[in-house]
Amino acid sequence: MTRIDKLVVCGVGLIGGSFALALRAAGLVGEVVGVGRTPASLAKATALGIVDRATDDWADALAGAGLVLIATPVGQMDGVMAAMAPHLAPGTAVTDAGSTKSDVIEAIYRNLDRQLGQVVPSHPIAGSENSGAEAAYAELYRDRKVVVTPLPENDDGAVALVRQAWQACGAQLFEMTPQEHDRVFAAVSHLPHLLAFGLVHDLAQRANAEQLFGYAAGGFRDFTRIAGSHPEMWRDICIANRQALIGELDAYLAELALLRAYLLSGDGGSLEAIFDEARTARNAWANRKED
Amino acid sequence: MTRIDKLVVCGVGLIGGSFALALRAAGLVGEVVGVGRTPASLAKATALGIVDRATDDWADALAGAGLVLIATPVGQMDGVMAAMAPHLAPGTAVTDAGSTKSDVIEAIYRNLDRQLGQVVPSHPIAGSENSGAEAAYAELYRDRKVVVTPLPENDDGAVALVRQAWQACGAQLFEMTPQEHDRVFAAVSHLPHLLAFGLVHDLAQRANAEQLFGYAAGGFRDFTRIAGSHPEMWRDICIANRQALIGELDAYLAELALLRAYLLSGDGGSLEAIFDEARTARNAWANRKED
Repeated sequence: MTRIDKLVVCGVGLIGGSFALALRAAGLVGEVVGVGRTPASLAKATALGIVDRATDDWADALAGAGLVLIATPVGQMDGVMAAMAPHLAPGTAVTDAGSTKSDVIEAIYRNLDRQLGQVVPSHPIAGSENSGAEAAYAELYRDRKVVVTPLPENDDGAVALVRQAWQACGAQLFEMTPQEHDRVFAAVSHLPHLLAFGLVHDLAQRANAEQLFGYAAGGFRDFTRIAGSHPEMWRDICIANRQALIGELDAYLAELALLRAYLLSGDGGSLEAIFDEARTARNAWANRKED
Repeated sequence: MTRIDKLVVCGVGLIGGSFALALRAAGLVGEVVGVGRTPASLAKATALGIVDRATDDWADALAGAGLVLIATPVGQMDGVMAAMAPHLAPGTAVTDAGSTKSDVIEAIYRNLDRQLGQVVPSHPIAGSENSGAEAAYAELYRDRKVVVTPLPENDDGAVALVRQAWQACGAQLFEMTPQEHDRVFAAVSHLPHLLAFGLVHDLAQRANAEQLFGYAAGGFRDFTRIAGSHPEMWRDICIANRQALIGELDAYLAELALLRAYLLSGDGGSLEAIFDEARTARNAWANRKED
């Protein structure tokens, strides 16, 4: 891939910071400029050497930029794109790291309609319950999947640059339509997060919450790990993808209604059949992942 | 604690096998005898050195036994106790490792009503999605909680022996009523298992299941780890504790109904407030556990 003389990262947290560190480690970037809404976060990213400098001036940031990664919570991307639009020159490719794609693409058409050739949506399937620049590391994307959902209007060169940048981070590249992407991730990511947040919230409100947490063990720890995730980021994802998420939640509620009926009637055989199918599917998946 | 000349373990899997290995490692047992329904499992436990010998004859097993641990799935305990009853002498203490207590205690009153002094119910809060004798290890109970729910009829000596045996395994001892125990574990253990089994089953039945699992990542892995648990064991737990479990499931369904309403109305503020409370509670718990 061509060296990027100037990389701009908007939102220098775990995702944006790791992208910058990975490209820097690969020797593929010159200057790295951070843009963000929180001066303290930008100062931290600068102190950690993730960005060379920070600015809140998009004209300054975008002047001569080769690539921009927007890595804010998805709810902020509309405003970020509106601020970028007047200063985005034809030679600058743009991508994002949003966990939802339909809403981000709506924001692109709304704000960057004169620059559609150069804005290529993407979603790295990587993350952690840890957030912030201090959690960033160059290897975050190593062997992880990145889904690119190119627009019909995208220039081949911009798509190639965005793909190459993620590949340089060590990621495996995939392409899907935005709609397909949002349905898949509602099922395997957004719903589990909602369920984990909901369970912990349910228990935390009880009069005997301290007793309950006192006896929670390893299974509970793993099941609820994702309830330690960033509330604002997940608020934005849930709202942005709420149509697909409600569909997945309703399918899950139907599953729970079935399980409840089996419990109520004492139908152990049907419960065991479901548990057995789940275990088989889960273990087959986990073993395949380890290959 | 007094040395146990003869220890009997009924059900030599992860739980029973680890108990035997821990007491043997502590030098506190003489002969260890395994009892079980599956000859292959007993042969494996013998080959692994977890038990010295195996038998299906309760008269033989119980002759001169100092302590018996019943570590079968809870659905089998009624039958096990019925088989033990004619051969259980006054000098033998009995405990169990069942994850539910009300149903086990019903089985005790039903089958061992002439030996109530010596049968002390317990529940070690330890386990794994791995099962079987090959998963057993002596350190499983180190720094784990064991809840003892003594019967009013229990002899002090039997309670002391059971407590000392678990302490010798490295466990921390707690006491609760059976009803309180079953409510607490419905909330923090049985419900999460049901939810994880349900999610994986829901997804595994889809026409695009392979695609979905293909994009599932680390959050999904942790959330569903307990869906790899033993189906029969969890069938028994769910059925045995279904009254408390349905109560917990209904509370959770109310929580999901609330989350669904916020999604439907696009109320991001309320979602974020719930996510934030959940994250705070979850992180406070996880940090306390690490102390």
